[in-house]
Amino acid sequence: MLIGINPNLSPDLLFILASMGHGDEIAIVDANFPGASCGQRVVRLDGLTAPDVAEAILSIMPLDDFVKEPAHVMQVVGDSTAVPEAVAEFQRVIDTTADTPAPLASLERFDFYERSKSAFAVVQTGERRLYGNLILMKGVVRLDGDG
Amino acid sequence: MLIGINPNLSPDLLFILASMGHGDEIAIVDANFPGASCGQRVVRLDGLTAPDVAEAILSIMPLDDFVKEPAHVMQVVGDSTAVPEAVAEFQRVIDTTADTPAPLASLERFDFYERSKSAFAVVQTGERRLYGNLILMKGVVRLDGDG
Repeated sequence: MLIGINPNLSPDLLFILASMGHGDEIAIVDANFPGASCGQRVVRLDGLTAPDVAEAILSIMPLDDFVKEPAHVMQVVGDSTAVPEAVAEFQRVIDTTADTPAPLASLERFDFYERSKSAFAVVQTGERRLYGNLILMKGVVRLDGDG
Repeated sequence: MLIGINPNLSPDLLFILASMGHGDEIAIVDANFPGASCGQRVVRLDGLTAPDVAEAILSIMPLDDFVKEPAHVMQVVGDSTAVPEAVAEFQRVIDTTADTPAPLASLERFDFYERSKSAFAVVQTGERRLYGNLILMKGVVRLDGDG
């Protein structure tokens, strides 16, 4: 553990978050997600829910404010407008924790898989609720005075 | 870069600091030190002075308060009581940045090498001043109310 850093951020995940740059994406996925086959790099946090992992990540990772849609969830198959419980919780985490909150956008299931494959890393959580999947784009840490 | 984390803490160094536990030690060494031959794990931060690296590390790593001497420097060869400039600066960094400041202890040159070999990792800096070497022992992050 380290001072002031959420203890859910494992050494592997800290390494990945610090390695990522502006525009790189990280996928936080549930226990059913094909993480090992989609991820270029995979970190496991089996003991945690997906929103808890999102909260830990957003406590130190800026969310990109250069794009309109820096956060994507997976659409419910057959009902693209449904809002599953895990997704509602993701939005609450973003609203309360992200440096620059934004509304969630969504991707069709297989488009979400493709986007995960191009992400910098996949964090596979122990989330048991379906649709507990979220892709976040890293933003910038500004110097005071930078626009 | 990450929000609220000293940008001198590279991904490799963050991984190491988060991997360390109570009582593990990290050696911050100068540009003349035999880091690659002493270190079980070696991280390089060639662009930085040793006190700057110590300050970055102590911004998130607790200093051990279970022991009387959680921080050691290398004694000047032939003058064990001398206080080189880099060592004076280490003490200032500990006093201003450590969660539990402590006075520096010292080790004879070859004892310092041996202690570095048993440390969890060595961080080799770009410090050009002689005796810019410091070993820090990691403490604990307490829950509120823990003794």
